[in-house]
Amino acid sequence: MSPDRLRTAIATVCLSGTLEQKLQGAAAAGFDGVELFEADLIANPLPPGEVRLRCADLGMTVDLYQPFRDFDSTDPGRAAANLRRAEKKFDVMTALGADTLLLCSSVAPDAVPDEQRLADQLGVLADRAAARGLRIAYEALAWGTHVNTYEQSWRVVELAGHPALGLCLDSFHVLSRGSDPTAIAGIPGEKVFFLQLADAPAMDMDVLHWSRHYRLFPGQGSFDLDTFLRCVLRTGYSGPLSLEVFNDVFRQADPGPAAVDAMRSLRMLTEPPRRQPRHVLDTEVPAPPELAGIAFVEIGVDRTGGRDLAQALEALGFARSGRHRTKPVDLWENGGARILLNRGAPRPPAITAVAVESTDPEASARRARAMAAPVLPRERGPAEADISAVAAPDGTSMFFCRTDVRAGPGDGWLADFAPAPGGAVGRGGAGPRCAVERIDHIGLTQPFDHFDEATLFYRSVLGLDPQTSGEVAAPFGLIRTRAMADPERRVRLALTVSLLRRGTWAPGVAEPQYVALLTSDIVEAVTAARARGARMLDIPENYYDDLQARVELPADTLDSLRALGILYESAPAGRAYLHAGTELLGGRVFLQLVQRIGDHDGYGWADAPVRMAAHRRFRDARAPAD
Amino acid sequence: MSPDRLRTAIATVCLSGTLEQKLQGAAAAGFDGVELFEADLIANPLPPGEVRLRCADLGMTVDLYQPFRDFDSTDPGRAAANLRRAEKKFDVMTALGADTLLLCSSVAPDAVPDEQRLADQLGVLADRAAARGLRIAYEALAWGTHVNTYEQSWRVVELAGHPALGLCLDSFHVLSRGSDPTAIAGIPGEKVFFLQLADAPAMDMDVLHWSRHYRLFPGQGSFDLDTFLRCVLRTGYSGPLSLEVFNDVFRQADPGPAAVDAMRSLRMLTEPPRRQPRHVLDTEVPAPPELAGIAFVEIGVDRTGGRDLAQALEALGFARSGRHRTKPVDLWENGGARILLNRGAPRPPAITAVAVESTDPEASARRARAMAAPVLPRERGPAEADISAVAAPDGTSMFFCRTDVRAGPGDGWLADFAPAPGGAVGRGGAGPRCAVERIDHIGLTQPFDHFDEATLFYRSVLGLDPQTSGEVAAPFGLIRTRAMADPERRVRLALTVSLLRRGTWAPGVAEPQYVALLTSDIVEAVTAARARGARMLDIPENYYDDLQARVELPADTLDSLRALGILYESAPAGRAYLHAGTELLGGRVFLQLVQRIGDHDGYGWADAPVRMAAHRRFRDARAPAD
Repeated sequence: MSPDRLRTAIATVCLSGTLEQKLQGAAAAGFDGVELFEADLIANPLPPGEVRLRCADLGMTVDLYQPFRDFDSTDPGRAAANLRRAEKKFDVMTALGADTLLLCSSVAPDAVPDEQRLADQLGVLADRAAARGLRIAYEALAWGTHVNTYEQSWRVVELAGHPALGLCLDSFHVLSRGSDPTAIAGIPGEKVFFLQLADAPAMDMDVLHWSRHYRLFPGQGSFDLDTFLRCVLRTGYSGPLSLEVFNDVFRQADPGPAAVDAMRSLRMLTEPPRRQPRHVLDTEVPAPPELAGIAFVEIGVDRTGGRDLAQALEALGFARSGRHRTKPVDLWENGGARILLNRGAPRPPAITAVAVESTDPEASARRARAMAAPVLPRERGPAEADISAVAAPDGTSMFFCRTDVRAGPGDGWLADFAPAPGGAVGRGGAGPRCAVERIDHIGLTQPFDHFDEATLFYRSVLGLDPQTSGEVAAPFGLIRTRAMADPERRVRLALTVSLLRRGTWAPGVAEPQYVALLTSDIVEAVTAARARGARMLDIPENYYDDLQARVELPADTLDSLRALGILYESAPAGRAYLHAGTELLGGRVFLQLVQRIGDHDGYGWADAPVRMAAHRRFRDARAPAD
Repeated sequence: MSPDRLRTAIATVCLSGTLEQKLQGAAAAGFDGVELFEADLIANPLPPGEVRLRCADLGMTVDLYQPFRDFDSTDPGRAAANLRRAEKKFDVMTALGADTLLLCSSVAPDAVPDEQRLADQLGVLADRAAARGLRIAYEALAWGTHVNTYEQSWRVVELAGHPALGLCLDSFHVLSRGSDPTAIAGIPGEKVFFLQLADAPAMDMDVLHWSRHYRLFPGQGSFDLDTFLRCVLRTGYSGPLSLEVFNDVFRQADPGPAAVDAMRSLRMLTEPPRRQPRHVLDTEVPAPPELAGIAFVEIGVDRTGGRDLAQALEALGFARSGRHRTKPVDLWENGGARILLNRGAPRPPAITAVAVESTDPEASARRARAMAAPVLPRERGPAEADISAVAAPDGTSMFFCRTDVRAGPGDGWLADFAPAPGGAVGRGGAGPRCAVERIDHIGLTQPFDHFDEATLFYRSVLGLDPQTSGEVAAPFGLIRTRAMADPERRVRLALTVSLLRRGTWAPGVAEPQYVALLTSDIVEAVTAARARGARMLDIPENYYDDLQARVELPADTLDSLRALGILYESAPAGRAYLHAGTELLGGRVFLQLVQRIGDHDGYGWADAPVRMAAHRRFRDARAPAD
């Protein structure tokens, strides 16, 4: 550990479970300390001294005790009672080995409005704390009765002028109010006792409700935490970088992955060029190498699913160009799109692996490891070439590779495949062609508990940026959407999650995975695919009647879309996203042909309800008994 | 159907599923018509004419087509395009047999600010509509760019002075803004073309987000819909009472029960004394009879659970006073508390039935039926006496009975029980006593999809009022709480629901059911129970250290609470709620001893996290492998 390295901490309130489970999760993720939330202690039978030992065993300290609420009071009787209450908490802190008490600005009606009087009351508390070797970190809650900005809390702390009284700065309370954090840099570093970091999505909502339910780890939301952190570090602050995130989802998720995700957020927040040179975590993180596209997608298939997939690929102009030399894996190609069918899967089709083309696969892998991505054993790869893989939050394997189509045997992953009869590995196949250029994007439904984690994962590990977020009112419940892509739009992911689905009402239909294939002429491509027997989705006439009412399209274009079942998402300036999907192939996977007009950046989400209803009809037609 | 009877309708957006499923659900619940939401039509292959026939087959009409958005425009080109778009929608409406188009005030930046110009544009649209035999219902969205109150929309409609242009009034848009609905009564009834009803919980939130996600059926939220409806009916409005509820939960729930719940909300809203005499639905609804308490709770138990429950009951001073004459059901009594153990259940213990003491059980049953409660076959009863039962939304059977402890054989449900050896049916048992007075309340975890439905069910069927609602940050995720009680507090229910839990992380612990037993001296009762070997939960010392810091209690009281594991919820003016629970008995059921000081109306929810953590420890100690 370098002397300049900042400590990391996490509030126990970020995680789910018993105190023991929270501590284990935090320690396993590599945190140096915790903020101990009072409720976690109260519900636990371990005496405070034992909690200290448990933390020590795990290599951690208790860096903050919180929250102690509503201390100051205009009612002298209550003020005295609060002081007695504080002494009890000092006993607890001493046993815990925690030297700093978080004191939030009061939200009570009897809060002291006068800043000098407030400073005096806090000074008395600081005296008592100092006598016990403790100190008070005073924080302005965004909804405090009188004190609700960091400028106010700093004025009060300055007025008090007590060495045992300093500030706690919380990014949520500063940024949620739209406050400018610049003036933070002018506060002396030794008066900043504690720093709490939290991100949040942009929402138009009462700030208390927003704070208590929707906070996120840095990098998952839309706050400018880089600037905030830079302002704080300019003060000379050298305490921990501590995460305090109240989030309904994390509160009920497995604390192990959640703590890892939390650590990942700090690693990304502190990496160059964001970090100040003096203040780094001690992990060396290579910058994300440039991505050149999606090398391949692997779909695991059982016997029935394999037949359905192979038929669909063939109809979409793919050719089976290669067979793996030792594994039951087929390589299918069309243009620059490569799909592996792994026939060894015991279950209905699912996307099991995604491989990105990296200009430096080794650096990509090192970065992934530094970002706490779980490294997968090499033998899990569909090929035998030595390519690195990590597990994404939804369990998909993520490979980093460089596809060299001119490689000789033994060089590059394509060399693991022997040419199929009549095929030529790496040449886009030799079957009947349907003008697919490459994989446009991959649609991945995320497990509910891991949606925000996935954003941070792909952002930190691959360097993808979140593009759009939204909600779709689908026939069987709301779907949340998030698109992520590299700056060059060579690698795109379309992530979705069912917001509330318990999963019994529309199995499969609400949670499909898909591979979108880019064409330059979707009408031609779908015509060809249908001619070859592709089971493309039929789209209702009602959709096209409405499209005609909404968008002025040439009559023959509209006729083609209508006849072929192509959905049309229009955007300003003549841009559009056109897409047509196959039926669900063996369960929850489908293939999609797409065309982007005018480089439209969309994903057709507005039409997802129409697509889902069509998938449901297809499914009901095959299995009428639901 | 009386000529004064108002029609009922429901917007398809209230329900989940395909259009066919929504229509089936609405018809089965008895609605006369639907508002057809455009997205439901577009995703469906049925041509509009077929939708009309499908509705007719189901005995319904399409009463409104919606939404047609952002019609008026300051941009002449766009205004003309919108008029063309409207003509296309008129074609659809003609085929649907829907004569009214809902037109929401524009939310677009190009919305017309000038009221006369806006009235002129709407007048042109009304001309076109009239030429087709259609009409336009104009509605002020609470977030409309310029028009966002009903007073504004009425001014514009008056200015236009067109017979085919009238108002659509939506309770959400009026009440969410805190508008006074009184002036509605001054609008001529023939200019109110449509009425949409929705309730909502009190929330401090952007009104658009609130409207799109959290609307409720009338009676589930906190809006004063009685006054609103009275104002609208005073105009002479005679169109449908139509429900338009956007709700994330209903969007993904089974549309069958959701539609029944929707109909229930209208029945309650229109019953005396709320309704105007002229405007009634055609169901006669008896007023809810007074409730005198909880007659009994039935717990279904398997072999192991039965042993655990019997031991716990015995330790809590219950005596097995009776055995059913023909069924494997035991009657346990302590004071006025009666618990039936039904040993015929194949599963771990669960509360299977709750019986309320009604002053008029037959009227209670008639009211339940009128409120669309599913009537259960008589043979399901634990007794053989002829008592009526309905199914609550969580599947619990709800009985209405009058317990006559002086009844002779064959008279009243107690007569079905033969005295157990040494027992005396209806005399509170003869075993060793522990001072239980009666059942205080029952804690029932609700299925996620049915929480708001449960509120309306107990409110409408039993006449219980919602007391408090809240959220508890429990160790394994957020819990929503809602207490309901009759005015005399003789029947209390404590309803909870896990907000997000997928259920694998803390099985049982997060979703327990319990029976709370009222005592007048909980210290004495718990002392006696523990002495008789009751497996009461142990509560951490940390809890009492904190209690001591928060509340000034006599030292010996605190010592007793600490020694006995009694939780203490304090309230102003010396009131308090004290409670102590047993371990989970065979899975998810526990018993609780409670005491109310100063008639405190609480349920101890603030301490639920402590209780849940204790239950988790108990469970882990028994089954260490999770």
